[in-house]
Amino acid sequence: MTAPIRTVFWENEAVVMVDQRALPGEERYVRCDDYRRVMAAISDLTVRGAPAIGVAAALGIALGARSFGNSSWEEFRLETLRICDDFARTRPTARNLFWAIERMKRRLATLPPDPARAGDLLLAEALSILEEDIEVNRRIGLHGRTLIDDGDAVLTHCNAGALATAGYGTALGVLRAAREEGKRFVVYVDETRPVLQGARLTAWELAREGIEACLVTDNMAGWLMKLGRVRKVVTGADRVAANGDTANKIGTYSLAVLARHHGIPLYIAAPRSTIDLSLPDGTAIPIEERDAEEVRGFGGLRWAPEGFPCFNPAFDVTPADLVSAIITEDGIVSPPLGENLRRL
Amino acid sequence: MTAPIRTVFWENEAVVMVDQRALPGEERYVRCDDYRRVMAAISDLTVRGAPAIGVAAALGIALGARSFGNSSWEEFRLETLRICDDFARTRPTARNLFWAIERMKRRLATLPPDPARAGDLLLAEALSILEEDIEVNRRIGLHGRTLIDDGDAVLTHCNAGALATAGYGTALGVLRAAREEGKRFVVYVDETRPVLQGARLTAWELAREGIEACLVTDNMAGWLMKLGRVRKVVTGADRVAANGDTANKIGTYSLAVLARHHGIPLYIAAPRSTIDLSLPDGTAIPIEERDAEEVRGFGGLRWAPEGFPCFNPAFDVTPADLVSAIITEDGIVSPPLGENLRRL
Repeated sequence: MTAPIRTVFWENEAVVMVDQRALPGEERYVRCDDYRRVMAAISDLTVRGAPAIGVAAALGIALGARSFGNSSWEEFRLETLRICDDFARTRPTARNLFWAIERMKRRLATLPPDPARAGDLLLAEALSILEEDIEVNRRIGLHGRTLIDDGDAVLTHCNAGALATAGYGTALGVLRAAREEGKRFVVYVDETRPVLQGARLTAWELAREGIEACLVTDNMAGWLMKLGRVRKVVTGADRVAANGDTANKIGTYSLAVLARHHGIPLYIAAPRSTIDLSLPDGTAIPIEERDAEEVRGFGGLRWAPEGFPCFNPAFDVTPADLVSAIITEDGIVSPPLGENLRRL
Repeated sequence: MTAPIRTVFWENEAVVMVDQRALPGEERYVRCDDYRRVMAAISDLTVRGAPAIGVAAALGIALGARSFGNSSWEEFRLETLRICDDFARTRPTARNLFWAIERMKRRLATLPPDPARAGDLLLAEALSILEEDIEVNRRIGLHGRTLIDDGDAVLTHCNAGALATAGYGTALGVLRAAREEGKRFVVYVDETRPVLQGARLTAWELAREGIEACLVTDNMAGWLMKLGRVRKVVTGADRVAANGDTANKIGTYSLAVLARHHGIPLYIAAPRSTIDLSLPDGTAIPIEERDAEEVRGFGGLRWAPEGFPCFNPAFDVTPADLVSAIITEDGIVSPPLGENLRRL
């Protein structure tokens, strides 16, 4: 049994996270003793994955608030709200970030006007978010594993694993849970350019677990399906609109079209905190565009001509009609997704 | 006007080629004064692209034959045939390789039994193949450019440019020809993992020509189409079966499915030497599987876990019904492709 992956945690008055930019080559931890370092870690992808970003932001807000423990209550309250706003500007797409910030703000509104005590209670709230996330992932796994058959072949994209959450994972949580009940299957891993979360992070997680896996480049997915080597696609999500339209890592939309063409189901595994009922459909989801340099190469190696124009959307939106089901902690939501998400 | 790209040529009793593994960072030339070095250059992708491989093999066969200029005629003939067989084992998928070898063998069968003179005539034949390839590409361009509109947006995959041929290119030849008649358009370039021929070679060619272009990762193609930013897909081909099924760089099949889903035409630009009427359909096309290490990283940088299992098919097959037309030097072949290819 390998030790659980510690994606982000609280230790000695600091937010600590494994540096996901260095994995799998190096397992190094970044200690953030200032909330601005947590913000930077979210922006620069030291920590990534919608639920993990939410947890990191909650801990970062608690960290920032606690630095005003000797201030007046009014200053503590206003500074904490300002810090919340700062975190809301780190990345735009993942719903869980805003969900976690809102939850911290709601907790702040109920606190006794005592900065030191309020700081402790905000930290407790952030730690609850962290613990609940792991529990929520386990419940997603228990529901989702009913969709995985013994002998199955599952394609996944990006990393929706322990590293994308406080632990266990959403899409990979489904696979972990299926494995825990003794099912055997093979996982095809899209490398997921430009940041290569599949090749680096998902491959690393699956190798640690001893789950049979095979890495492919993103452009091989269609051919794998054509060859009959993929029977299901399971991914995570960054934001699900009220009608079921789903924003996830760039490339998910292509997979959804390819899966539909080949009659293969696409399952989205995501906690309820990813669902944004305030947005009627996917057209309202803000899509982050990242630096062109990510497309021109990787990890200090540039292979495209210097300064060559690039387009680098970090996410795309899969229309609800290409999603076979959404696996949440409270059950599997089937089409019609809009109606069934409202009922959830 | 930039100087023409010299992909592969004959100079001072040697086959010389630009090292496509080093582009665009470095423009260095590899001089092969032994036919075995030409074989290695084909296998290790120093030279790549179906028509360019054919030209390199023809020159390599001439080079090898000429080293037996002082032998008996029988030895010259048998050694030349053996060298032809050796070249046939360098890479399996590109039809042009076998087409060029067959042409050299046919020429050999007609030669006077004089090794020195035969060596000169084989070299002349190989140089004809080279010159004809450029001319053929220009004719493909003249036919194909009628399909490109002013203000168009074209997605291309891999490199079907001057570097994939003796010069000018097939898919990029179509775009060059459209540009030469004054049309303006934007070209989206798939980076084309794992060997990144799009990001490295196509981007470099388009930048040299001053054609407006934008680089994307392979998994962005579907989203570009969904956003309405792509109106046509134009690629090359490595082998076209009698029914129009088309083998091309891995990822072409995914693009074909995505293009069909979005109502976007997919055009294949390829010389007649790519068409293999001996194969009834694409299931008979041998698909090269390359080393897993190509998938685990690039250019000396490995980002996947060491030894992680990979699948690395270098090509896929797009069924004829997803191909809108095949642009050849003798005109545009429209569906039904099987019938119209036979008539060509």
